[in-house]
Amino acid sequence: MNKVGIVSYGINKFSRDDSKIDSILLKSTKKLFDNCPNLSRTDIDTVLVSTNNNSKYLSAILSEMAGIQPKLAHTIESLCNSGTNAIVSAYSYIASGLSDVVLVSGAERYDSPGQILEWDNSRGEFKHPIFWASIFAKSYKREFTITEEDLAIVSVKNHKQAQNNPNALSEKAYSLDDVLNSKKLTDDLRLLNCSRPCTGGASILLASEDFCSKFTDEPIWITGIGQKTISAGFTKNTSDYMESTRLAASSALKMSNRTPSDIDVAEIHDAFSICEPMALESLGLAENGKGMNMIKELYYQNNFKINPRGGLIGSGHPLGATGVAQSIEIVEQLQAHANKRQVDNAKIGLVHNMSAAATSSTVLILEK
Amino acid sequence: MNKVGIVSYGINKFSRDDSKIDSILLKSTKKLFDNCPNLSRTDIDTVLVSTNNNSKYLSAILSEMAGIQPKLAHTIESLCNSGTNAIVSAYSYIASGLSDVVLVSGAERYDSPGQILEWDNSRGEFKHPIFWASIFAKSYKREFTITEEDLAIVSVKNHKQAQNNPNALSEKAYSLDDVLNSKKLTDDLRLLNCSRPCTGGASILLASEDFCSKFTDEPIWITGIGQKTISAGFTKNTSDYMESTRLAASSALKMSNRTPSDIDVAEIHDAFSICEPMALESLGLAENGKGMNMIKELYYQNNFKINPRGGLIGSGHPLGATGVAQSIEIVEQLQAHANKRQVDNAKIGLVHNMSAAATSSTVLILEK
Repeated sequence: MNKVGIVSYGINKFSRDDSKIDSILLKSTKKLFDNCPNLSRTDIDTVLVSTNNNSKYLSAILSEMAGIQPKLAHTIESLCNSGTNAIVSAYSYIASGLSDVVLVSGAERYDSPGQILEWDNSRGEFKHPIFWASIFAKSYKREFTITEEDLAIVSVKNHKQAQNNPNALSEKAYSLDDVLNSKKLTDDLRLLNCSRPCTGGASILLASEDFCSKFTDEPIWITGIGQKTISAGFTKNTSDYMESTRLAASSALKMSNRTPSDIDVAEIHDAFSICEPMALESLGLAENGKGMNMIKELYYQNNFKINPRGGLIGSGHPLGATGVAQSIEIVEQLQAHANKRQVDNAKIGLVHNMSAAATSSTVLILEK
Repeated sequence: MNKVGIVSYGINKFSRDDSKIDSILLKSTKKLFDNCPNLSRTDIDTVLVSTNNNSKYLSAILSEMAGIQPKLAHTIESLCNSGTNAIVSAYSYIASGLSDVVLVSGAERYDSPGQILEWDNSRGEFKHPIFWASIFAKSYKREFTITEEDLAIVSVKNHKQAQNNPNALSEKAYSLDDVLNSKKLTDDLRLLNCSRPCTGGASILLASEDFCSKFTDEPIWITGIGQKTISAGFTKNTSDYMESTRLAASSALKMSNRTPSDIDVAEIHDAFSICEPMALESLGLAENGKGMNMIKELYYQNNFKINPRGGLIGSGHPLGATGVAQSIEIVEQLQAHANKRQVDNAKIGLVHNMSAAATSSTVLILEK
């Protein structure tokens, strides 16, 4: 099987602007080309678009706009973890020998139709994702202690970390009081506990081992892939709320022959503040019930190894771009190009991306 | 690299009914299970949905409804050739070793948003696909002779062949006069020269060589894959109108180590009657300018090796399901299970699926 490396990337500043989806795709693709002087349009033989946008044929549209005539081109959608699904698909096209060089471009507008969980009639009126997050919080509180102040710390930390990310949506740090006084949306969650949908694009270039050296001296290898879909409807989920994350992490770590303690830096899918401690536990990065302890410890030590770019809460959440942006952050960390966000001596990184109340999850392990 | 075989399938009767997209997906998936007694829900580790429908998260929804908890699950869209893109993606998941058994389910409703080419401003008002087909006809007529009667024969042939396909939309044969007197839609094309969008679903199961024998004694192997995207906008296409088909066929035949004369049976993307002779020539099955001669010769000999199920004109064209349905037809032919449609001694088959004025094409070679 071909080894697969990440060899370039491009990312737009996340915003609330009204750009058209094809412009968003093109913008980060152009940056990816700018970042890779040896890349020519004819090198790319597959173009995958990751989005929840309703426009059709976007891979062909992006290809035409970028002057690429790929063999393979199609769109991939799986709600919030579309981006990592597209990266896994790119990996498989290369590892199978069907492609040598794959462009994955993720894009979303602030008004994405993927934000509301329309299909799940069991939700009744409660179709906005905050309701499952609130149920997650209630459920977590039944087993472990987590206070409103704890949850606020997740938001404070991620907004703070985002201030060192030039592409983040968040443009200010918030105090604990800011979060605790923000609008109460459910019993358990306030406005500043939530990530915000936004307009954003992120592109990444993958290549087979033979082609990597043409594009970069510092490819980042995908060494572990884990994915799991448990259900689509939230009420079909088990009491093991992040089961899909747990299983995906276990597969990814096994494939890469690593353990959780090997992970130097991680992007965690903090769609809501409660997700971060729960995911840390499901990923095996913290013991059960100890996710919040880990977050607080790191926060007070000013150690930003968890969500250095500010997570979804700080960076914003353009659904189809999020998994790609998370992966770019880990690439920059492992290449020691993360500037003020740089985690010391980061050699092995993890990406955690999930959809719809963790009914499905993807975990990637990336290495220098 | 793992060999990849097709081991089961299920298909719904194409219709104009108002079923919901998830019901269409489930219906053909259920038939696929019925056709494969040894298949259990836990065997399937990847679920790919092919559709242009705007609903999100359909792979997870189908998985939940079918009782499957896959590792990988996402939707794939590339307009009319979404189905073959999904099959190629399934192939790559297996060949790369990420999956062993992949369910691909294609579905569309008669009111699919993929029917109108919204993005292409160069078309002005002319966004319905019939306008590019009409330009194809004009262009073809500049180089070669093709009469209205010739084009009518394509439709008569495909509607006739569809009468032996229990899943076809078309429920009657038409005479030459019927076609020639049908409503004139453009200078070059009449109503009965067109395939009709419809409601339809088709599912196919792929497995790695090691797993094939669990499910069937007669797997059909995917031996050749070719794909090409030239552009998205029609006016960016070259005067070599079916260049993407020509290049895709060349790659697929090379990969399978076959020549056009080896092909015993073929599914051709006849979205409009003019497409069939043009595609036969681009695929290398007929010499340039001789596609119509080939069609007439086969028709008068009652040889239905081209589009035995009636093509898109006879079967109907549920966009995301079409490429899957075409592949199922070739599987049935190679397994000698095609009943009244059976082509004698069919050992090597070809699937041709394309999108949006042949701006992109997929060609698959299947073998016993």
